[in-house]
Amino acid sequence: MKGYGPSVALPSASPTGSATFLSLPAVADPTGVDVAVIGLPGDTGAAEGGGAHAGPRAVREASLTLRPIYNPSQRLQVFEHLSVVDAGDAAVAPGATQAAPAAMQTALAALHAGGVIPLGLGGDQTVLLAELRAAAAVRGPLALLQFDAHIGAGEPWRDERDSHGGAVRRALDEGLIDPRRSTLMGMRGGLCAAGEYDEARFSGLTLVPWDELAQLGTGVVARAVELAGGPAFVSFDVDFVDPAFAPGTGALECGGPTSAQALALLRACRGLDIVGADVLGVLPGIDPSHITARLAATVAFEILTLIACARAANAAAGPPAGAAT
Amino acid sequence: MKGYGPSVALPSASPTGSATFLSLPAVADPTGVDVAVIGLPGDTGAAEGGGAHAGPRAVREASLTLRPIYNPSQRLQVFEHLSVVDAGDAAVAPGATQAAPAAMQTALAALHAGGVIPLGLGGDQTVLLAELRAAAAVRGPLALLQFDAHIGAGEPWRDERDSHGGAVRRALDEGLIDPRRSTLMGMRGGLCAAGEYDEARFSGLTLVPWDELAQLGTGVVARAVELAGGPAFVSFDVDFVDPAFAPGTGALECGGPTSAQALALLRACRGLDIVGADVLGVLPGIDPSHITARLAATVAFEILTLIACARAANAAAGPPAGAAT
Amino acid sequence: MKGYGPSVALPSASPTGSATFLSLPAVADPTGVDVAVIGLPGDTGAAEGGGAHAGPRAVREASLTLRPIYNPSQRLQVFEHLSVVDAGDAAVAPGATQAAPAAMQTALAALHAGGVIPLGLGGDQTVLLAELRAAAAVRGPLALLQFDAHIGAGEPWRDERDSHGGAVRRALDEGLIDPRRSTLMGMRGGLCAAGEYDEARFSGLTLVPWDELAQLGTGVVARAVELAGGPAFVSFDVDFVDPAFAPGTGALECGGPTSAQALALLRACRGLDIVGADVLGVLPGIDPSHITARLAATVAFEILTLIACARAANAAAGPPAGAAT
Amino acid sequence: MKGYGPSVALPSASPTGSATFLSLPAVADPTGVDVAVIGLPGDTGAAEGGGAHAGPRAVREASLTLRPIYNPSQRLQVFEHLSVVDAGDAAVAPGATQAAPAAMQTALAALHAGGVIPLGLGGDQTVLLAELRAAAAVRGPLALLQFDAHIGAGEPWRDERDSHGGAVRRALDEGLIDPRRSTLMGMRGGLCAAGEYDEARFSGLTLVPWDELAQLGTGVVARAVELAGGPAFVSFDVDFVDPAFAPGTGALECGGPTSAQALALLRACRGLDIVGADVLGVLPGIDPSHITARLAATVAFEILTLIACARAANAAAGPPAGAAT
Amino acid sequence: MKGYGPSVALPSASPTGSATFLSLPAVADPTGVDVAVIGLPGDTGAAEGGGAHAGPRAVREASLTLRPIYNPSQRLQVFEHLSVVDAGDAAVAPGATQAAPAAMQTALAALHAGGVIPLGLGGDQTVLLAELRAAAAVRGPLALLQFDAHIGAGEPWRDERDSHGGAVRRALDEGLIDPRRSTLMGMRGGLCAAGEYDEARFSGLTLVPWDELAQLGTGVVARAVELAGGPAFVSFDVDFVDPAFAPGTGALECGGPTSAQALALLRACRGLDIVGADVLGVLPGIDPSHITARLAATVAFEILTLIACARAANAAAGPPAGAAT
Amino acid sequence: MKGYGPSVALPSASPTGSATFLSLPAVADPTGVDVAVIGLPGDTGAAEGGGAHAGPRAVREASLTLRPIYNPSQRLQVFEHLSVVDAGDAAVAPGATQAAPAAMQTALAALHAGGVIPLGLGGDQTVLLAELRAAAAVRGPLALLQFDAHIGAGEPWRDERDSHGGAVRRALDEGLIDPRRSTLMGMRGGLCAAGEYDEARFSGLTLVPWDELAQLGTGVVARAVELAGGPAFVSFDVDFVDPAFAPGTGALECGGPTSAQALALLRACRGLDIVGADVLGVLPGIDPSHITARLAATVAFEILTLIACARAANAAAGPPAGAAT
Repeated sequence: MKGYGPSVALPSASPTGSATFLSLPAVADPTGVDVAVIGLPGDTGAAEGGGAHAGPRAVREASLTLRPIYNPSQRLQVFEHLSVVDAGDAAVAPGATQAAPAAMQTALAALHAGGVIPLGLGGDQTVLLAELRAAAAVRGPLALLQFDAHIGAGEPWRDERDSHGGAVRRALDEGLIDPRRSTLMGMRGGLCAAGEYDEARFSGLTLVPWDELAQLGTGVVARAVELAGGPAFVSFDVDFVDPAFAPGTGALECGGPTSAQALALLRACRGLDIVGADVLGVLPGIDPSHITARLAATVAFEILTLIACARAANAAAGPPAGAAT
Repeated sequence: MKGYGPSVALPSASPTGSATFLSLPAVADPTGVDVAVIGLPGDTGAAEGGGAHAGPRAVREASLTLRPIYNPSQRLQVFEHLSVVDAGDAAVAPGATQAAPAAMQTALAALHAGGVIPLGLGGDQTVLLAELRAAAAVRGPLALLQFDAHIGAGEPWRDERDSHGGAVRRALDEGLIDPRRSTLMGMRGGLCAAGEYDEARFSGLTLVPWDELAQLGTGVVARAVELAGGPAFVSFDVDFVDPAFAPGTGALECGGPTSAQALALLRACRGLDIVGADVLGVLPGIDPSHITARLAATVAFEILTLIACARAANAAAGPPAGAAT
Repeated sequence: MKGYGPSVALPSASPTGSATFLSLPAVADPTGVDVAVIGLPGDTGAAEGGGAHAGPRAVREASLTLRPIYNPSQRLQVFEHLSVVDAGDAAVAPGATQAAPAAMQTALAALHAGGVIPLGLGGDQTVLLAELRAAAAVRGPLALLQFDAHIGAGEPWRDERDSHGGAVRRALDEGLIDPRRSTLMGMRGGLCAAGEYDEARFSGLTLVPWDELAQLGTGVVARAVELAGGPAFVSFDVDFVDPAFAPGTGALECGGPTSAQALALLRACRGLDIVGADVLGVLPGIDPSHITARLAATVAFEILTLIACARAANAAAGPPAGAAT
Repeated sequence: MKGYGPSVALPSASPTGSATFLSLPAVADPTGVDVAVIGLPGDTGAAEGGGAHAGPRAVREASLTLRPIYNPSQRLQVFEHLSVVDAGDAAVAPGATQAAPAAMQTALAALHAGGVIPLGLGGDQTVLLAELRAAAAVRGPLALLQFDAHIGAGEPWRDERDSHGGAVRRALDEGLIDPRRSTLMGMRGGLCAAGEYDEARFSGLTLVPWDELAQLGTGVVARAVELAGGPAFVSFDVDFVDPAFAPGTGALECGGPTSAQALALLRACRGLDIVGADVLGVLPGIDPSHITARLAATVAFEILTLIACARAANAAAGPPAGAAT
Repeated sequence: MKGYGPSVALPSASPTGSATFLSLPAVADPTGVDVAVIGLPGDTGAAEGGGAHAGPRAVREASLTLRPIYNPSQRLQVFEHLSVVDAGDAAVAPGATQAAPAAMQTALAALHAGGVIPLGLGGDQTVLLAELRAAAAVRGPLALLQFDAHIGAGEPWRDERDSHGGAVRRALDEGLIDPRRSTLMGMRGGLCAAGEYDEARFSGLTLVPWDELAQLGTGVVARAVELAGGPAFVSFDVDFVDPAFAPGTGALECGGPTSAQALALLRACRGLDIVGADVLGVLPGIDPSHITARLAATVAFEILTLIACARAANAAAGPPAGAAT
Repeated sequence: MKGYGPSVALPSASPTGSATFLSLPAVADPTGVDVAVIGLPGDTGAAEGGGAHAGPRAVREASLTLRPIYNPSQRLQVFEHLSVVDAGDAAVAPGATQAAPAAMQTALAALHAGGVIPLGLGGDQTVLLAELRAAAAVRGPLALLQFDAHIGAGEPWRDERDSHGGAVRRALDEGLIDPRRSTLMGMRGGLCAAGEYDEARFSGLTLVPWDELAQLGTGVVARAVELAGGPAFVSFDVDFVDPAFAPGTGALECGGPTSAQALALLRACRGLDIVGADVLGVLPGIDPSHITARLAATVAFEILTLIACARAANAAAGPPAGAAT
């Protein structure tokens, strides 16, 4: 199956019409394709404003001029190896904060059930738990590779279920992720308690704060890929980079990576068996120059490239031993 | 009791230090004062972004240069007649959308129990129900005078309790407001169904869409005051004015009143027995010039003036007959 | 044919997924529908910046929360009477200024040929000529009703064909519009020459500067409708309103109508036989609060309502005499 | 002397090159011309931010597309009757708040001495006193016609000489303006003391708050012109209009006039003997859409038109009796 | 004395109510605490706009979500070792540029007299001289460690006392700082004269332009700490970082450090005996995403951590020899 | 000839009056000077909005506070060696996209004919071809050193002559540049086809994508200078840097150099025989903090410094052998 890709005749140089991600075809039932880009407009109003629920559309809009036929950093024609569509957004009404997680999970479960890898466009961090639940139900416990300025496991607001902040901890509790195979990278800034990092490490997670990651570089990621072993979920919160590179996001943490550093780290995930991924945290309303959405679109394109790399490698290696011929 | 007011020695011309509304004293337990300004940072992420939960602080900041000693429009020295403090914000954690309404109601109930009139600074429209519940518990069914571009009674999102949009309908269902004594003014724009206005009117509410209000003017408000009869709640959503005058709000409805028209209508509430009031809908993040917060601060000052007018009139009339001397 | 309209089950209250105007179905070949909304991303870089070619998408985005089932101002369920789709944008590559007019004309001609009324979303004023050429080729000379702060007939830049500014003059020269049936409304501000208004009037056009229109009101529009007689084109440049109401546009002319005044004038076009229409001049990049795009979306919805009113009136009047039964 | 005006060959439609007001010639020594536009970049950092000292350049930039050959509102070819140049800015170093007033006064005095009418572009309100000192030194006590949301006579900060706010009071004290011939229009909003208006009226000034002006209309201005009798100074603070129309200014006062109302009032000054004028209060940094600077440029053009009207009327009336022939 | 710190029960995750720095208690008379955060709203209008006098409040607002209990970069629970309050702003009226320095000096002197270390939030660079005067009066000549893109000693505007730019030179002249113990770091960009750096070095100051600092790294800071010897003042102008990381400041100098580089350099001050400090130059009005204020808040938190480190080290070392037991 | 430079008496610290680049004299006929800064307001509306045609004025405005007397990075008093003026903008009417290239070429040809080096301020990338045509006509085929995130040779829009994107390819076709002596640096992001880089290299051009350049550093530039051999043109598109450092530009490519890296690379061009240069791509309307224009101004100042370095070196070397004495 050759499948779906961006139109080549009039490439993304022409940002006209309703925006889909990379001008990919809008397909409501993407069964049979390799990857479906799906908007996850979760927004609990926790962030500094900017409208996380409008994030997905902003990322689509920003993707229109990316020229995604060939990715020179990975030397790959992405859509030679991958059929991708834009599946629209999960049916989440703004303000329906209680119903949202289940609605997102349902939409994602349908993709996993059809053998489609979802690439989620957030939305605030509350969408992560829905993603992991949908993925683990089909794939079993996942390796999580998270690029985020926050540990996301501390549950600062304990009275509220499914809240911003506690997604990783709850994913551990529910057995959605395998801590021994999971690596969280990039955390920095102050903490609500001295023991937050240790507590998370005690659960088995590998934590690499930005201070260390900046020194150790892509080797950290290579080891995270190795640790992951099997099916993995890649989550990229745009607050991973320094606020200068993503001003339109929530809890800004100064002193982080540049976009160039971040993209190099992400590209080092080559070889990972990605069964789900996302890019989160775009609050378009407070970034008048739209550089945050552009970065998110670039990250999503790099994730697509990573998946395509794996497909290309598998195809080159031939059918797995024992496959019927 | 002379009570609390803005510092006169160095009036609000000096916007320095932490902002309280009109530089009023920050008082955690305002028992015994006449009015407490209280932030109601409700935010379900429903709005177009901009951070409704940061609205109260933005209004405080914008209030600092208002010079509120004398209101020439009502010819009154407001704080000669009124003791007012800033009671801070209700304890609502951002993103805690489920716990928020009860937290706000609790804070407001304490004020009502202490005989203090709360003047709420929103926050998105989800705060209104908490306000009415707290007020009605002490005062009984209220007359509601609402300035809003939306009817707010239609409940477009039925699966979510306490949601944006359905506050007025639920207030009716719960007996918090008396429809015969209540007037909703300013609605305009498209509707989700042809019968929305009629349905609301059928419940007994008086509805005056902006088209009519524009023609009939302050007489409409005078009649609403008359209808109200007793204890009343005034709610002013900044989306009542045209988006040009309040760009930093949620569901913008073009073709509305100017600020001058809106303030004239509000001032016509003179004589109303206000036992609670609010100004809602400020999303500071999407209004770089801060004119929305400034309008909200002006509205809040006019509401204080209305309450002061009533006190001044009562004082002039002497103690009610039968009062102990 | 009942036809296409916005989804009623989950109304526009849910601004999720790729944006189409009013969440209307995206239909590439709209033959057989009544009206097709079509983006006309003309942009010659003449305007003050802000990206006119991104205007259509901004208007779609801003339309998502309009709740367009019922228009209370005209007391009409718009999509009971009208089948409407979003036909995407004309295939114009950004920067391809020379090829753009023909490309837009081709896309519009196909609509007219199929009996579909195009409702164009601009784009800068260079799109108007393409619209009139496409319309007149099928419909013959049109009555033009233009709401614009500029006369648009003066051709200040004479060396450049199809330029911003000279569209009306060229439309006259080419016989696309009938000056005796056409009315231009709203011009104000300085002129490049004393005789500009007189020159335009000499050609037969009716000109009503804003100063006069402000005094005479909707009666002017009623007379313009009467003058029009037959098939008419309605063009609404958002610079018609005062810059406060549409800051995201090109040549701002201070001292214009409020949005409320503008919408009242537009609604007075009821009865006009509209065969083509547009709303122009949205430069989203320089309006961080997006109130300009919201106004444009509202104007487009009101134009749809006008067309629906005519259909409803015709339907009520029964089939025209001589129609086969 | 025919004199200086905007280039006609390539009118302001071409906003290229360094900006001068209306693309007028930049002339360092304007002796012999009728009017010199001069930037007065006073900025004491009092305003809400936005950089008042950058105001003059922002107004020049915004003026470039005004097409100022013919003013249809007054039916006049302005530069047929008036020779006008752009004299640059008074030599004020940013932050040199103490030296600034004298520097501005010197630059203005040179213009008055040469028989040139200065049209000042502000700058915050601290420039007004320098303007009045320079003008009165040559012309004697002036009639002041001020359009401003604030009375400007209250001196809220008494320890600081030449401060924002106290200019009118000091001008009275120094005999620069004749209170009996002066009218202040447009004040609104709260006051620092109940008696502020009365105190100002007691000095002989005519005060017309916006509430009254809105009702009485241009007749008020006609009477102010009549009262003025002789040489007059027109000062227009952009905070006169509602914040929606001039968001980029200092102490925003909600509930003010629209731009249309403001321009109509200003045009009613026809007949006044203007010997100096200004437009003040533009803070470009906080108005990303630049509508405030555009309004200021329009106001300045209308003031030029008023001066040209007077010249045209004088020319039509012939030389004054007793003039040498 | 355990003292004051941020509320732990509801940590800074809840940005509600009036903002104090890190939600610290607002205490008017901070005698007896270790550090008092104090706003220094100096603003001479010299900067590019943006309202330096509103800088302190913007930094407070941006600090609310910093989670400051534990600083993982220095592995310290900051408020275990330090009692800190928010002392509000020095009483400076906006526009009162002449009175401001003395007012700020008075407020700061009271803190020094009470043994409290002031941590100033600026305000433009004019506040530095007041800070040094207040500190040196009690502590004697100080070592100054300055992170700034400008040398700040050149006095480009010589006629104006206490002006922006000349603070360091005047501090030398007045003997407030000891040049042999002081290091200025980060200067770059053009100069008004070839000899500016040499002139400053001739006075004994150590200058490390950014070009050198970028190459030599934290070793430079370690040497500056060594040079300092005794009581030191740390001044951090946000223009030290590249404009991408602090767009909301005055004289932007491109080509500077990233935030990550800047914070690493600042953290290298560990061991310094800080008796006063500030973070300056925040102009909130021109940074719609508020990343500048967030960086400033982070810098202030790192400075608090440095002071806490010193206290922790002293406590660990036991009472100094000769201390009474 | 000592020639023209910025005023020294009142250096750029005073940003008053109409803006010229670095406050240089505005000179219409710059014959005899060394370098003329010239605005090239090309704008085809292709970019994301922001008004490329207003770019030149924005760069001038941003240059006013650069203090350009001495450049410490190159240790040079620039205007000791160079006479420079601001020649205004080429006469390009906004929207006149067809006439613009010839108009710009004419203006530039006059400079080259007079022996003046033009330093162009863009404008979008469509101006490059006009620059190269004008330069090559006098100087013969040039070495091109381009800093740009895009290869600019791919002609994605083939139907439109002189379009954005195809300038380098057409310059090759027309023999304006010598590919063996030309180096393009900084490209990154996706491509429209896999072979774009190879195709360009096949023509003889040296291409150094950002990934390589980041690793190899200034040595690449040194080699490019060596390759250039003779007369060279330096073109710097602000999209060369990461969007964080230049948010106000067109096709943002994330993951690029910091400003510090970019300036270091540019300064490594020392020794190049520059006969023409530009800085392109400033879209001021979408960068409210103006950091993009500030970077462009800094780049232009560094280019002036490079030219001055060459003059200084030549002067030190004495007259070339064979020169008349």
